[in-house]
Amino acid sequence: MGSSFGDLFRISTFGESHGGGVGVIVEGCPPRLNLSVESIQAELDRRKPGQSHITTPRKEADQVQVLSGLLDGETTLGTPIAMVVRNKDQRPGDYKDMAVAFRPSHADATYQAKYGIQARSGGGRASARETIGRVAAGAIAKQLLKQAAGTEILAWVKRIHNIEASGIDPQRVQLSDVEANIVRCPESAVAERMVERIEAIGREGDSCGGVIECVVRHPAVGLGMPVFDKLEADLAKAVMSLPATKGFEIGSGFDGTLLKGSEHNDAFLPSDDGRLKTATNNSGGIQGGISNGEPIVIRVAFKPTATIRKEQQTIDSDGKATTLAGKGRHDPCVLPRAVPMVEAMVALVLADHLLRQQGQCSLW
Amino acid sequence: MGSSFGDLFRISTFGESHGGGVGVIVEGCPPRLNLSVESIQAELDRRKPGQSHITTPRKEADQVQVLSGLLDGETTLGTPIAMVVRNKDQRPGDYKDMAVAFRPSHADATYQAKYGIQARSGGGRASARETIGRVAAGAIAKQLLKQAAGTEILAWVKRIHNIEASGIDPQRVQLSDVEANIVRCPESAVAERMVERIEAIGREGDSCGGVIECVVRHPAVGLGMPVFDKLEADLAKAVMSLPATKGFEIGSGFDGTLLKGSEHNDAFLPSDDGRLKTATNNSGGIQGGISNGEPIVIRVAFKPTATIRKEQQTIDSDGKATTLAGKGRHDPCVLPRAVPMVEAMVALVLADHLLRQQGQCSLW
Amino acid sequence: MGSSFGDLFRISTFGESHGGGVGVIVEGCPPRLNLSVESIQAELDRRKPGQSHITTPRKEADQVQVLSGLLDGETTLGTPIAMVVRNKDQRPGDYKDMAVAFRPSHADATYQAKYGIQARSGGGRASARETIGRVAAGAIAKQLLKQAAGTEILAWVKRIHNIEASGIDPQRVQLSDVEANIVRCPESAVAERMVERIEAIGREGDSCGGVIECVVRHPAVGLGMPVFDKLEADLAKAVMSLPATKGFEIGSGFDGTLLKGSEHNDAFLPSDDGRLKTATNNSGGIQGGISNGEPIVIRVAFKPTATIRKEQQTIDSDGKATTLAGKGRHDPCVLPRAVPMVEAMVALVLADHLLRQQGQCSLW
Amino acid sequence: MGSSFGDLFRISTFGESHGGGVGVIVEGCPPRLNLSVESIQAELDRRKPGQSHITTPRKEADQVQVLSGLLDGETTLGTPIAMVVRNKDQRPGDYKDMAVAFRPSHADATYQAKYGIQARSGGGRASARETIGRVAAGAIAKQLLKQAAGTEILAWVKRIHNIEASGIDPQRVQLSDVEANIVRCPESAVAERMVERIEAIGREGDSCGGVIECVVRHPAVGLGMPVFDKLEADLAKAVMSLPATKGFEIGSGFDGTLLKGSEHNDAFLPSDDGRLKTATNNSGGIQGGISNGEPIVIRVAFKPTATIRKEQQTIDSDGKATTLAGKGRHDPCVLPRAVPMVEAMVALVLADHLLRQQGQCSLW
Repeated sequence: MGSSFGDLFRISTFGESHGGGVGVIVEGCPPRLNLSVESIQAELDRRKPGQSHITTPRKEADQVQVLSGLLDGETTLGTPIAMVVRNKDQRPGDYKDMAVAFRPSHADATYQAKYGIQARSGGGRASARETIGRVAAGAIAKQLLKQAAGTEILAWVKRIHNIEASGIDPQRVQLSDVEANIVRCPESAVAERMVERIEAIGREGDSCGGVIECVVRHPAVGLGMPVFDKLEADLAKAVMSLPATKGFEIGSGFDGTLLKGSEHNDAFLPSDDGRLKTATNNSGGIQGGISNGEPIVIRVAFKPTATIRKEQQTIDSDGKATTLAGKGRHDPCVLPRAVPMVEAMVALVLADHLLRQQGQCSLW
Repeated sequence: MGSSFGDLFRISTFGESHGGGVGVIVEGCPPRLNLSVESIQAELDRRKPGQSHITTPRKEADQVQVLSGLLDGETTLGTPIAMVVRNKDQRPGDYKDMAVAFRPSHADATYQAKYGIQARSGGGRASARETIGRVAAGAIAKQLLKQAAGTEILAWVKRIHNIEASGIDPQRVQLSDVEANIVRCPESAVAERMVERIEAIGREGDSCGGVIECVVRHPAVGLGMPVFDKLEADLAKAVMSLPATKGFEIGSGFDGTLLKGSEHNDAFLPSDDGRLKTATNNSGGIQGGISNGEPIVIRVAFKPTATIRKEQQTIDSDGKATTLAGKGRHDPCVLPRAVPMVEAMVALVLADHLLRQQGQCSLW
Repeated sequence: MGSSFGDLFRISTFGESHGGGVGVIVEGCPPRLNLSVESIQAELDRRKPGQSHITTPRKEADQVQVLSGLLDGETTLGTPIAMVVRNKDQRPGDYKDMAVAFRPSHADATYQAKYGIQARSGGGRASARETIGRVAAGAIAKQLLKQAAGTEILAWVKRIHNIEASGIDPQRVQLSDVEANIVRCPESAVAERMVERIEAIGREGDSCGGVIECVVRHPAVGLGMPVFDKLEADLAKAVMSLPATKGFEIGSGFDGTLLKGSEHNDAFLPSDDGRLKTATNNSGGIQGGISNGEPIVIRVAFKPTATIRKEQQTIDSDGKATTLAGKGRHDPCVLPRAVPMVEAMVALVLADHLLRQQGQCSLW
Repeated sequence: MGSSFGDLFRISTFGESHGGGVGVIVEGCPPRLNLSVESIQAELDRRKPGQSHITTPRKEADQVQVLSGLLDGETTLGTPIAMVVRNKDQRPGDYKDMAVAFRPSHADATYQAKYGIQARSGGGRASARETIGRVAAGAIAKQLLKQAAGTEILAWVKRIHNIEASGIDPQRVQLSDVEANIVRCPESAVAERMVERIEAIGREGDSCGGVIECVVRHPAVGLGMPVFDKLEADLAKAVMSLPATKGFEIGSGFDGTLLKGSEHNDAFLPSDDGRLKTATNNSGGIQGGISNGEPIVIRVAFKPTATIRKEQQTIDSDGKATTLAGKGRHDPCVLPRAVPMVEAMVALVLADHLLRQQGQCSLW
């Protein structure tokens, strides 16, 4: 409860930021899938700290170890796939003050209120380190979707603070465009300005947020389980469960509410192959909670990192007023590292719904 | 799968727009709750069609019948509570053309693609009629939350098309303010302009959308189950499962991404009673996925109604190009009737998490 | 929680023995299944009280009404199928004393202890009346299994008190053999003695139990989800959730523990069609938690009916000693009516696992 | 799906018999439980191979490592507790023939039929080695039940082949009695004969089965969730998911069907403390699916070990007739090592239902 996600393609993550390690069990993966452990590691490398000067300087190898579920390390058995990443480079000293003073807008105070206890340092389960299990599992989901349906999932940074990339075409953008720079914005001129902004804000001891966009190209048609497990509903939950998220949009999103029905509706076009085809894609690839085969497009708002070096007002665990200045090594902006996290969560939703659709609607 | 929602306080809805009826089973409701069936009916009356001239003129009594789970019609037994509303006033003729031509941005085409079959008329499960079960169940959740924790849930229309109410204080607004006008916007001067806009757009045979805001006052502290069932994640899923939703925000939302961490963080204040208290509420009442006791504030984007009287390009079920003009009796704007739906979905999430928190964290 | 069963083919039952009605929602049924409502009613007729002089003389028509999920009353839409049976012929007076004195070995005392409240009469959810929803849903599962895989499910009474039928061949017995007599034992000579025994014990104001056997012929191969949702584990749970059950066996069962491995093992035989074939079937059609295609054979122990006319020692709800003699119209032996219940629960397990297998293992 | 068990206190196991290791994640454990890792290891030691001359001579240390969920290695955080045991002492050579010839009454053939692939050696997930995760998780459940409700769970061998212990009093038997001999039968004279029987049958290259009995003393009252998650139904599923089980009984079990209602009913006795008390315990501590506070007593049938040294008829993976004689190091009788497995599964069910009862019925 709470640390598991999905119904048929189901993952369970474990691990605190400091302790033996973090990891995940992937349950329900179809048997006889060719699985590349290198691809899993590659996704983890996109997520890991210390990958560039605009991320936290913490150095962690984040080497994944697959404990079960594979034959010869390359073919799924249909049994649970357990993956573990050992914790390294621990400096609990960094977090000493934090154990006493509650970090504003962080999870310290609420974990204490909920559980009456909490991990002594580093954010415990609320640390971004927890997302390792998600990214590793998401890498498997991606390979499943690719092999079963030719589906591609790609995310990128669309806005940092108030610097927005407006020329990206979700139909065409490639992984190499995204990975071409350290901020993961495929519009290179804008990316440069984003990096400068992150540097500047980081120098102030402050932080910033922004917006990540994600596209699913060639999704299977018919995914989504009305009325509660509509595809957009499960996507919303998936990304809103990532740390630091504040908003979710699909297709036309909040701006779409400014249009009239006649402007917003996506006219159906005749197609040669019987697939549904629409003139516009305000629906974002999902209608009535079910994928129609057009690209699925979502956007996710990430707030500025809560932990900053600037001194802030807060209280300590006795409820007394105090001040706090973060001493840990934190990202001034989480978005570059959050790109693979968003892709992973989207992949997990799609993989789960692929199997659910297969379960209910493929008998005849 | 798909028609059930919640873990411990769990609902399952059933019913097409045309057929024997629609309804819901509520499972897991605590025993010995004083339940007012009148309050359930009152919520359904806020949702029902024909309640004002800016909603669909369809007349449906939507009278709820409670089949099980109550002693003397007023106290819960702890067993499943089944509620049914019979379908009335059916005019399947209205939908005749729609069975052939797929309505743009509606669910006809995707239901057909997914299931290979669909209800012959009226939208089937994709009809807003399905939300009757949600609203009835939400009314029970509200009473549970009120009696167990003194929690209040209130939603209202914040924006219609581009007319926005900017002076509403989520801490103070009352149900009577919301119900004071037919558009359910508590700022009366703005409400008047909203009604005029809906009338004007309706006369054009077109439709419009907007934004609903919802507050939870006096939520229990500690609700939310990291890392996947964070409270905001479950809220996002809950409201994004409502028909016509395109976006979700909590607290500072998308706008919050324009702030720096030092501006966005909510400083903790010393409090007399040991409860957490923050100087600002950019977090929207949830930190680290767990409620901190401050008001929970969310916003939901609703697109313009898909079915309009204006003629539109589309295809028929054979894939041939055709045009379609909606002849049914539809809302030119769903928001006034969606207000109780949003409250219901929020109440269901809170009730479920209250029981989940009780289950895991109240033994000692 | 508690009133739902299954994962993909999932049912939720509701209703007390007295009140508005009882029923069930079936979620996840594949679309485009030809469904005969008459067949559902036929199963309910096998279950209903008053069907013969050895069952309770209560007369209830138990007429099922399908509220949703069907097109033209005969084809599934893939959406939830809700079925309701109205309660009739209520004589709450019969149960007056029982509201005060706890019936020994019945659920009165434990429901009160658990919930702190209970239905005022008739056993509430603990009544056999609750099984109506199971049998109706099971009838759908049977039709699904028949159409998808040619699977047949058949149960019968194997023992009443100490009168046992020993000549039944699970491979060959037919529904007509079972329905040939009122006790539902396909060995007619033994059946006669069983009826006499039930009559005799009933005349004493007492009751008796026995054993029901059930076979699944032509099950799909590969059903069952190790390691916890092994097919026999889910079958055990399914039938042990029926009222009055005390034991479950599969294949060789308890007697099989008296054999040595060399005697108990089922040798595999070469087969022409690639299907698995075994020389014996001590496994009862399931190996390693997975169906091997051989007939699945289980047995279920039912205790003597708890409510009897004979006076018994007990306590009242204040904890004071008292005596009680049942005045309601109860079955002296539940087994004849439990036969369709066992079939229904077995069908529900198989249908669910068929979809689960389809979901995980049919992509390529 | 399939490798997870429980709703609120939920475990997910992973790992093949050969590979990186086996383990479990325990989700939903209440925070602030004092947890002894030594006690977990002690339970694993009762389960491990090589513990006596009547078990398999494989030597495995089965040393548990706790990766997450604990503060200072002794207090639960309320977050997932991950535990891993590394695989050692692998001799895949032993299983070479088995990869080709299907072992009769083992899981080789059905895993192949279901998944189209299987672990190359040692039984994969079907190996008893998988139960390590269950026993480790069960040890946590035991500590939870003890601290929260004073509950004790104890199992023992009641019968081996046809040698039965008939003088054991479930109310009084102690762990030390069970652990006093290597066969884990608390009746020492009978135990001696059981050991001799196992030795004799083992010398023949054959195997034997038997019956394990288990008692829960001082269970919380009110556990169990009618109508499907009755406590006995979940217990049945729990133990029937263990390898080699063929039957389950509660209380009077199959023999109880030979009694009349007047003989079988458990008369309620007045009690001083308001707790329910019964004159007899044919119900086995559960009535209407809910614990009444009396000891819960169950029995489980285990078949003779499938893998034997004697030559047997079978087929190979091409469907051709062949013979097979087990060469691996296997237990001639699984029961001594299965005792802690039964206790673990029972503890997991009770812990889960304790939290579920707390969740629904403890708000007021």
